[in-house]
Amino acid sequence: MTGSGQPLGEFDRIARFFAPLSRGAPGAFGLTDDAAVLPTQLGRNWVVTVDALVAGVHFLPDDPADLVARKALRVNLSDLAAMGAEPYGYTIALALPRDQADAGDWLERFSHGLAEDQERFGVCLLGGDSVSTPGPVSVSVTAFGLAAAERVLRRSGATPGDSVWVSGTIGDAALGLDVVQGRITGGFDDLADRYRLPRPRIALGRGLVGLATAAMDVSDGLVQDAGHLAARSGVAIDVDAPAVPLSASAVTLVGHGGPRRRYRA
Amino acid sequence: MTGSGQPLGEFDRIARFFAPLSRGAPGAFGLTDDAAVLPTQLGRNWVVTVDALVAGVHFLPDDPADLVARKALRVNLSDLAAMGAEPYGYTIALALPRDQADAGDWLERFSHGLAEDQERFGVCLLGGDSVSTPGPVSVSVTAFGLAAAERVLRRSGATPGDSVWVSGTIGDAALGLDVVQGRITGGFDDLADRYRLPRPRIALGRGLVGLATAAMDVSDGLVQDAGHLAARSGVAIDVDAPAVPLSASAVTLVGHGGPRRRYRA
Repeated sequence: MTGSGQPLGEFDRIARFFAPLSRGAPGAFGLTDDAAVLPTQLGRNWVVTVDALVAGVHFLPDDPADLVARKALRVNLSDLAAMGAEPYGYTIALALPRDQADAGDWLERFSHGLAEDQERFGVCLLGGDSVSTPGPVSVSVTAFGLAAAERVLRRSGATPGDSVWVSGTIGDAALGLDVVQGRITGGFDDLADRYRLPRPRIALGRGLVGLATAAMDVSDGLVQDAGHLAARSGVAIDVDAPAVPLSASAVTLVGHGGPRRRYRA
Repeated sequence: MTGSGQPLGEFDRIARFFAPLSRGAPGAFGLTDDAAVLPTQLGRNWVVTVDALVAGVHFLPDDPADLVARKALRVNLSDLAAMGAEPYGYTIALALPRDQADAGDWLERFSHGLAEDQERFGVCLLGGDSVSTPGPVSVSVTAFGLAAAERVLRRSGATPGDSVWVSGTIGDAALGLDVVQGRITGGFDDLADRYRLPRPRIALGRGLVGLATAAMDVSDGLVQDAGHLAARSGVAIDVDAPAVPLSASAVTLVGHGGPRRRYRA
């Protein structure tokens, strides 16, 4: 029915676009039952996180559907990484505008995006719900990972004297939104990519278990998120602005962070 | 800030309305971390289900917020019941209109509704996400239950010769929607209640483990859902219309189901 303009029923959507994504997941039952089963993993606990994205708020209404899918999955995988968990699978609740004429094409691209990142991160779809909405597209993902019992990274473990480390480069996604929305011109596709497609630090998160005293993923910006970690740990964090790693594009746009400043988060 | 017309930030919403609902849940970390932990339960598996509700589609925009919350929770608990699982907890992704002036009042009622049903069903909030939307209110709940390993009720186990049983009375929620929307007049508040507030058959589901060959909850209507179960089990189901239990109100409105008919699902 792709592109026919005929609305796809929920069962058609699930059978055609989503059930194939559950292949190989024990307990997903091919998305044909009332619920899924997460098999007990001896010595390991399940780690669960949920993040929702809404068109016009968390992504742009004309963003490609495959990138929307991958972003929805990755923001959740990033939370698992921040806990030091190994990704396992996810459920998805998708609300699509009921009059969306190209729903079939959109879903095709959306499910291809999921398939691509399932392969990359070793996860599969465990269940979901597909509904109509009079509003914009919205995607809510619940992601499941595994962590050795009592060995998750928390926000609350930092103590005075700890050093603060970041991975990758900071601020690219915020600049990328400016690129995507035309406030920054002259290229910088690398920054746009960083806005559209977060990079969950799965291996790093798992490697930090037992080493880091606290961890979190940066989603609201370095200074704000450092503040959240500081609050949970009952410490203050000095952010040494010139020491923050920036991408070449960010340096081109904003320089090296200017004179040394200390933000007390 | 209730009723001030000031938009509530995500952190305010979580701290004020949702964190208290996680109290006592080990691994929820008071909703202050990147993810929650589901502790391993020896000999039992986690059962997971997700259902999303959108205002104007699954509930009426002016339905009381506490009933919306309870319905969102209960449709998921009903799926757990259909698998024979014991409810444990849930995560929630809530999208609220960004210009909703009474968001504080709405959230207060919404969280009270959750608290009431948490008490009733012995579950607690494990995590969530709270976002703004240019569209209608939407609520996506992922519910977690526990079941003895290899002992979940599936849709696929029915065999020829099995009897089909239903719990409660059939069709009340569909009639209740007609009542709520004014197509049926003259009272029938009991039917409106059935539309607004599903009744998860938790004890029944758990009691049926090891007895029933297959099970599911009725959400699309008896004949349609019997068809789903029949398809998954590879059987046909005869529905003996006059034998279907109806409430007194339904009998008043539609009679006793008329002459004996057999639907072959």
